Amino acid sequence: MDFGLFLIYLAACGAAAATGALFPTGPWYAALRKPDWTPPNWMFPVVWFSLYLMMSAAAARAATVEGSSLGLALWSVQIAFNTLWTPVFFGLRRMKAALVPMAGLWLSVAATTVVFFTLDLWAGLMFVPYLVWVSIAAALNLSLVRLNPDAARPS
Amino acid sequence: MDFGLFLIYLAACGAAAATGALFPTGPWYAALRKPDWTPPNWMFPVVWFSLYLMMSAAAARAATVEGSSLGLALWSVQIAFNTLWTPVFFGLRRMKAALVPMAGLWLSVAATTVVFFTLDLWAGLMFVPYLVWVSIAAALNLSLVRLNPDAARPS
Repeated sequence: MDFGLFLIYLAACGAAAATGALFPTGPWYAALRKPDWTPPNWMFPVVWFSLYLMMSAAAARAATVEGSSLGLALWSVQIAFNTLWTPVFFGLRRMKAALVPMAGLWLSVAATTVVFFTLDLWAGLMFVPYLVWVSIAAALNLSLVRLNPDAARPS
Repeated sequence: MDFGLFLIYLAACGAAAATGALFPTGPWYAALRKPDWTPPNWMFPVVWFSLYLMMSAAAARAATVEGSSLGLALWSVQIAFNTLWTPVFFGLRRMKAALVPMAGLWLSVAATTVVFFTLDLWAGLMFVPYLVWVSIAAALNLSLVRLNPDAARPS
């Protein structure tokens, strides 16, 4: 793993992470009807912090492998959609519209995971928890839309 | 240039571009005091569309050059900060706080431009208009903070 590249990828994650601080959950989210399996609020920053470290390490490992340009391009897509989702969901509170960046995020994370596995076993493995978490987040976004038909602003 | 990579990088730009549609300028921005040299509103989507095409083409060219991992990592940083800036400025209307992602964007675009020039002349050249535009955007963000001390929400 190239440590300089790790820090650069971590800087990209910093932009995504900032959305969590800038667009907090607040009373609107607290008042939504949620499925039983909704993770508690404290878990989100903890999980995301771990995922940002792992996805940066995965990219820094993959980058040292020849022919990694496809995987690194997909990594760029996932970090952009990751940064987009929070302002749409918690900023605009457009839960339905947020399903679009969520779909983009899920697809790009899944594609990055697959391509990283072809480049480097550890890079692929470090993306698996991210894919699991984004799957949970996508299911949660969808459940919140269904359980709160009147809470979403028109999208 | 690898056309498949171009489309993948363009998808990342799509997330950034979506912020322009989701967080429009609106009456708040229209009412701000602006410097004489503020570009007219119609110019922003036209310029951004051109810049997204160029920065995707630049990445797709650079990616085919050996040793491009540093440049591609920096590209990821700039697209994440690009996606972050609009929701902070036009969504939260936190003009001062928006200077932080703007600084991250300017630095990452400048670094990507320099590194792309070492990889491929055209990739570097295609980032120059982006660096110029982000410099103008940064100067505009700073001027708006100064000219409208009361319009920014506390940050």
